[in-house]
Amino acid sequence: MTNQPSIPQGTRDFNAVTLRKRNHILSTIKTVFELYGFQPLETPAMENLETLMGKYGEEGDKLIFKILNNGLNNEKNIAAAKAGFEKVLEGKNSVDITERALKYDLTIPFARYVAMNHNKLTFPFRRYQVQPVWRADRPQKGRYREFTQCDADIVGNPSLLSDAEFALIYDEVFNRLGLKDYELRINSRKILSALATACNAPDKLVAITTAIDKLDKISIDKVKAELAEKGLADAQVAIIEKYISISGSNEQKMQQLIPIIGNIAEGNRGLEEINNILQHTAGKNITVDFTLARGLNYYTGIIYEAKAPATVKMGSIGGGGRYDDLTGLFGVPGIPGVGISFGVDRIYDVLEELKLFPENVEESTKAIFFNMGAAESAFAFTIMQQLRSAGISCILYHEETKIAKQFSYAEKNKIPYAIIIGSKEIEQHYCQVKNLNTGEQHVVVFEKLVSFFNSL
Amino acid sequence: MTNQPSIPQGTRDFNAVTLRKRNHILSTIKTVFELYGFQPLETPAMENLETLMGKYGEEGDKLIFKILNNGLNNEKNIAAAKAGFEKVLEGKNSVDITERALKYDLTIPFARYVAMNHNKLTFPFRRYQVQPVWRADRPQKGRYREFTQCDADIVGNPSLLSDAEFALIYDEVFNRLGLKDYELRINSRKILSALATACNAPDKLVAITTAIDKLDKISIDKVKAELAEKGLADAQVAIIEKYISISGSNEQKMQQLIPIIGNIAEGNRGLEEINNILQHTAGKNITVDFTLARGLNYYTGIIYEAKAPATVKMGSIGGGGRYDDLTGLFGVPGIPGVGISFGVDRIYDVLEELKLFPENVEESTKAIFFNMGAAESAFAFTIMQQLRSAGISCILYHEETKIAKQFSYAEKNKIPYAIIIGSKEIEQHYCQVKNLNTGEQHVVVFEKLVSFFNSL
Repeated sequence: MTNQPSIPQGTRDFNAVTLRKRNHILSTIKTVFELYGFQPLETPAMENLETLMGKYGEEGDKLIFKILNNGLNNEKNIAAAKAGFEKVLEGKNSVDITERALKYDLTIPFARYVAMNHNKLTFPFRRYQVQPVWRADRPQKGRYREFTQCDADIVGNPSLLSDAEFALIYDEVFNRLGLKDYELRINSRKILSALATACNAPDKLVAITTAIDKLDKISIDKVKAELAEKGLADAQVAIIEKYISISGSNEQKMQQLIPIIGNIAEGNRGLEEINNILQHTAGKNITVDFTLARGLNYYTGIIYEAKAPATVKMGSIGGGGRYDDLTGLFGVPGIPGVGISFGVDRIYDVLEELKLFPENVEESTKAIFFNMGAAESAFAFTIMQQLRSAGISCILYHEETKIAKQFSYAEKNKIPYAIIIGSKEIEQHYCQVKNLNTGEQHVVVFEKLVSFFNSL
Repeated sequence: MTNQPSIPQGTRDFNAVTLRKRNHILSTIKTVFELYGFQPLETPAMENLETLMGKYGEEGDKLIFKILNNGLNNEKNIAAAKAGFEKVLEGKNSVDITERALKYDLTIPFARYVAMNHNKLTFPFRRYQVQPVWRADRPQKGRYREFTQCDADIVGNPSLLSDAEFALIYDEVFNRLGLKDYELRINSRKILSALATACNAPDKLVAITTAIDKLDKISIDKVKAELAEKGLADAQVAIIEKYISISGSNEQKMQQLIPIIGNIAEGNRGLEEINNILQHTAGKNITVDFTLARGLNYYTGIIYEAKAPATVKMGSIGGGGRYDDLTGLFGVPGIPGVGISFGVDRIYDVLEELKLFPENVEESTKAIFFNMGAAESAFAFTIMQQLRSAGISCILYHEETKIAKQFSYAEKNKIPYAIIIGSKEIEQHYCQVKNLNTGEQHVVVFEKLVSFFNSL
């Protein structure tokens, strides 16, 4: 027990103002997902430890929050628990200590769900999922230990139509949020793979893409130095330099790429993937960027990265791509898919910085009835219930006190209207309605109060 | 890694149909909370272990899911971890093993939040909170290890107006959900306390209420036997028997109570609390039940229990009450409050059993465009985007295949309308719209397609 309560590092309480803004973002995204035919899914916070382990690389695995088994001190568990704890101290896992863990992302639980239910699902299966995930990362600005992910995927379907739909979803969501100058960059993993083939170094694909991926942080000379260090010869580096120097309009970039990878079948398929998206998204903000290389080990086709408007220093606010095999890890091979994700916390910061939250986003309770005494407030209570029945959110101040105090309460709670019913008003069958933002005052008979608020 | 993935015992995946039904319940409750001026709050899944421990009694504490600290195998942590683990094996807690735990309910995190922020909040503070909680309970029908709680409280305010509002919230929510025959039982802890005083056994309050609370499960004779066993003399048991035999209308019950406790000040204050609610809820389903005794150690005034209609064997679907001191445990005394909770999982089962979910609750995607070939589907894609822009949820079947297969996909996904655009339709500028429930078919020119769906 403590007298100075606190919350765990990297976690947050969300008050009403923050939640209303977050919900503005989340409900915009969900509405667009639904428009595009996606169905909601929710999975538990906990997964069996074995579902998660080994899926996120060595560094990722270390960041999984594991849940201590209950009842370790039961006689029947103690021996196994002791042995299990020895393993934990060696940096291993033991189901005798932790059978369960908190989910680290939404993709692996989704894969687990599809694998468990693949006989019941109708493919292509379009699902979206908006839930918190947990990572034992070092907390820092914009990085939390509990944060919300917001994913949509179409699985069980190789059709490129899906690739195009995700580009359009990004466009629709960002436009609805007022982020008209967002950037959406696309590439294909097949083109990166063809580049490695063009360099005659398909075994160096990871080294090449890792180096290229750093281009937005380090200079082209440093990228070249890194490539040389990884064992690429000058001639190979020269091909890569030509590749990363491609520039101009989308059309110009594709023209410049053809001499580099145009004779490689995989590269041509990659170009088709890019072309497919450009055809379906005429007039939208799509930038072909052959240096984009996110999540290479996972993706096999198109990849997306969404960025905040250039005026905001924020970087990626979303990303995704196509993959060949979602559920193979869980014993169900042959389910390809494509999906994207929105970075909710970053989008929040961007909207805040650009002042793009709607003006009324914080509005909630519409009116407060002032408490003018026992009889008056009993009367006001009845009128209040009529307003509530009509869908108008309101409260009655809880005690008879100075009007100044009641005004101050209304103001602190951002309630825009005060309704005053004193004994004279009861007698004469009307109330005073005061707009607390403008000071404007209205006399409204009781029967017209609902329509007064509905007409605002 | 496993080939037969599963989820932890007592947890659930929620598919789209279940989620749409759950959301029907949750959004109804949230809408009513908002109408009554409550503001949303969300707290993290994890709390510091010390925030939770010691708050739920010995049995409750054992059911808290604790999170294993990460990095126990770091050299600097090993010694402390070993010592901490010894404590765990003795059934104690150690922050060297588990600093954090999953929240067990919404009340203690709310109390922690109010204590942390009491200088910033405006009282009375009305908050609602709809979030999952976790308990390492033995899973059984209707009891889960992860489940959603749905709470609203008004704190920092002794006004009985709040007590009445919660009774009206229950009524409004259950009516909106179609549960017109719900029961809401009320009592006051002060009346139970006065009964103990009337028996001249104020020290036996817990024993008396615990016995009385069993009346809906065991006979009156067994309750009397239990009271005798707890050391109550015949004369004392006789008073209690008279108390629990009170029956009739609310008015009659209150009349019968007066001779038993009417000369005890606390009892009279309890009767005032009951009267206050009855006055504000004329015409509603409120039953005064002096044997209601939930959560005695916590509550100090009015207590509520909501029950499903008697035709459904389900018992409590909600409850709550008034308490004197929310945040004293966290060093901030003097914040009284009153609050209620809805049992979402049970309400779900009740609505399912009584077939009270709205007919269209599962509806989502409105239309599917059949894929009639490459050129036709490219054309359909454009029309589809027009519908989506107009807020009509739709998809395009992902490949050209037999129409029967596309019909079957639509049916399995419960999509009510199919839109067919073949080469003839493109030429003649219209589409066929088929209602898949009735078989009815419409010819609609492209320009009228949005208004066709909007007018449904």
